[in-house]
Amino acid sequence: MTDTPDKQTTGTTAQNTGRDDRPMFNRVALVGLGLIGSSLAHVMRRENLAGHIAGATRSEATLKRAEELGLCDSYHLDAAEAVKDADLVFLNVPVGAMGTVAEHIAPALKKGAILTDVGSVKGAVIRDVSPHVPEGVHFIPGHPIAGTEQSGPDAGFAELFENRWCILVPLENTDDEALARLKRFWQAAGANVDTMTAEHHDLVLGITSHLPHLIAYNIVLTAADLEEVTESEVIKYSAGGFRDFTRLAASDPVMWRDVFLNNREAVLELLGRFMEDLHVLQRAIRWGEGDKLHELFKRSRRIRREIIEAGQDTPAPGFGRR
Amino acid sequence: MTDTPDKQTTGTTAQNTGRDDRPMFNRVALVGLGLIGSSLAHVMRRENLAGHIAGATRSEATLKRAEELGLCDSYHLDAAEAVKDADLVFLNVPVGAMGTVAEHIAPALKKGAILTDVGSVKGAVIRDVSPHVPEGVHFIPGHPIAGTEQSGPDAGFAELFENRWCILVPLENTDDEALARLKRFWQAAGANVDTMTAEHHDLVLGITSHLPHLIAYNIVLTAADLEEVTESEVIKYSAGGFRDFTRLAASDPVMWRDVFLNNREAVLELLGRFMEDLHVLQRAIRWGEGDKLHELFKRSRRIRREIIEAGQDTPAPGFGRR
Repeated sequence: MTDTPDKQTTGTTAQNTGRDDRPMFNRVALVGLGLIGSSLAHVMRRENLAGHIAGATRSEATLKRAEELGLCDSYHLDAAEAVKDADLVFLNVPVGAMGTVAEHIAPALKKGAILTDVGSVKGAVIRDVSPHVPEGVHFIPGHPIAGTEQSGPDAGFAELFENRWCILVPLENTDDEALARLKRFWQAAGANVDTMTAEHHDLVLGITSHLPHLIAYNIVLTAADLEEVTESEVIKYSAGGFRDFTRLAASDPVMWRDVFLNNREAVLELLGRFMEDLHVLQRAIRWGEGDKLHELFKRSRRIRREIIEAGQDTPAPGFGRR
Repeated sequence: MTDTPDKQTTGTTAQNTGRDDRPMFNRVALVGLGLIGSSLAHVMRRENLAGHIAGATRSEATLKRAEELGLCDSYHLDAAEAVKDADLVFLNVPVGAMGTVAEHIAPALKKGAILTDVGSVKGAVIRDVSPHVPEGVHFIPGHPIAGTEQSGPDAGFAELFENRWCILVPLENTDDEALARLKRFWQAAGANVDTMTAEHHDLVLGITSHLPHLIAYNIVLTAADLEEVTESEVIKYSAGGFRDFTRLAASDPVMWRDVFLNNREAVLELLGRFMEDLHVLQRAIRWGEGDKLHELFKRSRRIRREIIEAGQDTPAPGFGRR
């Protein structure tokens, strides 16, 4: 489906064709104004993707801050108000809140609108959101593989999606045209777009994102609980490697709680494999099997090189942070 | 011991007193010209710490490259030649090679010289090197907590030690004056200096460096071995968190093999605790204990902030690599 040639639509919604200055969508609603929501707002401004950006969050403080930053054109505590008349609606809330939000906004959704999300788990979001999607609304789950350890409306920036991948998960009855339009949106935001099933997404992200976060949280907790090494020592000498993990472990606790609760099976399966492999390393260390350790460590060096060649990380030593 | 006021020595070796342009040491030998050795060469040039830098490595290719880069003043395949007449000798070789190298250079060491190392394990280095140290030579084990995932003579740069910690491990009979001189050297190289026992060093580094590397190697191997997710998918979507681990897992395989073989007890003890903690998270996920996960994840956020406040990592999101 990703290879479907883009078609020019002739509907009432303006298209960003490069031939005029009409925005790609007339009205886009952002339900949730954290890192992803605010980054979407920034890139929509830069690329002229929305005639009107309607922002919604249930936190008054966040809404006020979004307004101070000028992220949107209208600001709403009630998400149902924001999505009214919107041609494109983004759900940017923790995975565990998707169902409730969808149920609340459903009656206000416009016929023909595209409803998408940016959640890190796709199976659970489809399970929770689908039952509420009205006839005539195109629900296309999505997930941009981009982020930082920061959260909130101040954390966003227009370049967040640049050269990152966005995975779209078309459902059985997904409209090709709606899918093509959402794909064009993400491409205009700088992303590469892939499609896959929800099940495969949840396994792929389980290993590339969920397990790494779990491990990072865990090692930080192990370090904090040691009695023989003080926390101040852990902090002082963190440049030996530990500090790398603390970045992921500084990610939003609510978002990540929801990820683990909602991608339970894939995470537990992958965690089982991780522990098996760790037992192999543990045994090799205990028995002094140097050749085995050396062979295993050599293998993992190549993957870093390939990630850099694929443009998914910087070649600069130490992430270039010197 | 770190609080001993610096004294001006009146010996034959020049001191970098700030009052003249004499180098801090007349002749410094670098045995091993990888990341740390070449960085030492760069910073010694910049700060005028050595009248003559003698570089040694048993690899002809590395020695040739060091010469092309102009890292040293003389180049030696035989480390015993390099250390002759040196006032300060650095052993910059993998931990498992320290004993052999020490035995080889011992007869060539000058009386009064300081012999130090930069190995990531201190107990094993003391065990392997001490028996070979001649009477009158000051052996002071050391470890700069600095590095990148790159290795070899091209990887070094003068700023590597800037605001990083260098741990010195004075032995029972360590001469105060020699310790003060080595401390001044590291401070001139940009580092902060701490002293502690070898046993404590090996535990502190076990949690802040060795365990993080082991975990990083392990998750990369787990990902590479999955059948349901291709390696190309792991690479494409690595920005979800996985890529952070690949940096540590790209570190020198020989160096790290030697670390694990030589800090076995501390690493196995810490690994046991890490797995215990991981089982707690595993169970919380299996039983859907959201409150517990949330509490644990909130705790680990604070440590990141403290590392940044201590100047041990950048506050920029994503390590500033956008």
